[in-house]
Amino acid sequence: MRLTLYTDFSLRVLLYLATKEAEELSTIQEISDRYQISKNHLTKVVHELGKMGLIETVRGRGGGIRLNVKPEDINVGELVRKTEDDFYLVECFRPDGNHCILSSACRLKGALHEALSAYLAVLDKYTIADFLVNKEELAAILFSKPL
Amino acid sequence: MRLTLYTDFSLRVLLYLATKEAEELSTIQEISDRYQISKNHLTKVVHELGKMGLIETVRGRGGGIRLNVKPEDINVGELVRKTEDDFYLVECFRPDGNHCILSSACRLKGALHEALSAYLAVLDKYTIADFLVNKEELAAILFSKPL
Repeated sequence: MRLTLYTDFSLRVLLYLATKEAEELSTIQEISDRYQISKNHLTKVVHELGKMGLIETVRGRGGGIRLNVKPEDINVGELVRKTEDDFYLVECFRPDGNHCILSSACRLKGALHEALSAYLAVLDKYTIADFLVNKEELAAILFSKPL
Repeated sequence: MRLTLYTDFSLRVLLYLATKEAEELSTIQEISDRYQISKNHLTKVVHELGKMGLIETVRGRGGGIRLNVKPEDINVGELVRKTEDDFYLVECFRPDGNHCILSSACRLKGALHEALSAYLAVLDKYTIADFLVNKEELAAILFSKPL
């Protein structure tokens, strides 16, 4: 059981931006360098987070990206529901490709739905702000060494 | 977020065998035909379920497989923990490949662990027997048409 890389990177980008001061800008290059993850992937992630209204892009020389909402307004459960395109735990969860002969009568599906709901209900309790209680420590890790 | 095909098929094989009468034998060919899933995949799944002690193989002419334990003794949470080789929701869950710079200080990890525990705790409440309350309906779907 995994979350997609897309969810993983989305969370990391939001944590990165939330660790900076409110108006401070970051670049995709800088985030890519700090996390050592592909700039191409990050560009897509930032684009999607922008479409969700979570990131603002300031264009031009000296431009960059920053959070468009407060960390306490970014709910993790809500985010993960958007970044995970695929909660098809087993075949009968797929609206398009469900060929399991048992599907109409199977009670297992209900148990798996219940488990997934419990998973997301935990994430619903958290916002990005909850992961900033040790913000100084995060900032030291992310920004103390020159790039 | 998905479970592996291996987990999906394991659950389906156990449901299939549990829907038969206690001592009745099934063949991998028959299960493959009923579910329309690859016999090769099923052979591996059955082998692993055998190693876990959940399936018994009767060799020779007229042989086949059947449950080695009662459906009420097959806990779904326990099974899924064994069949999912990979609960690495995000990179920092990997013991081997964890390169996320934040890993040592990141509180998000705790929230994801908590969510995963909630997921598995729901599955821990169920055994295969819980999905047999409509056993006659399942049997009608699985066995009523000749192969």
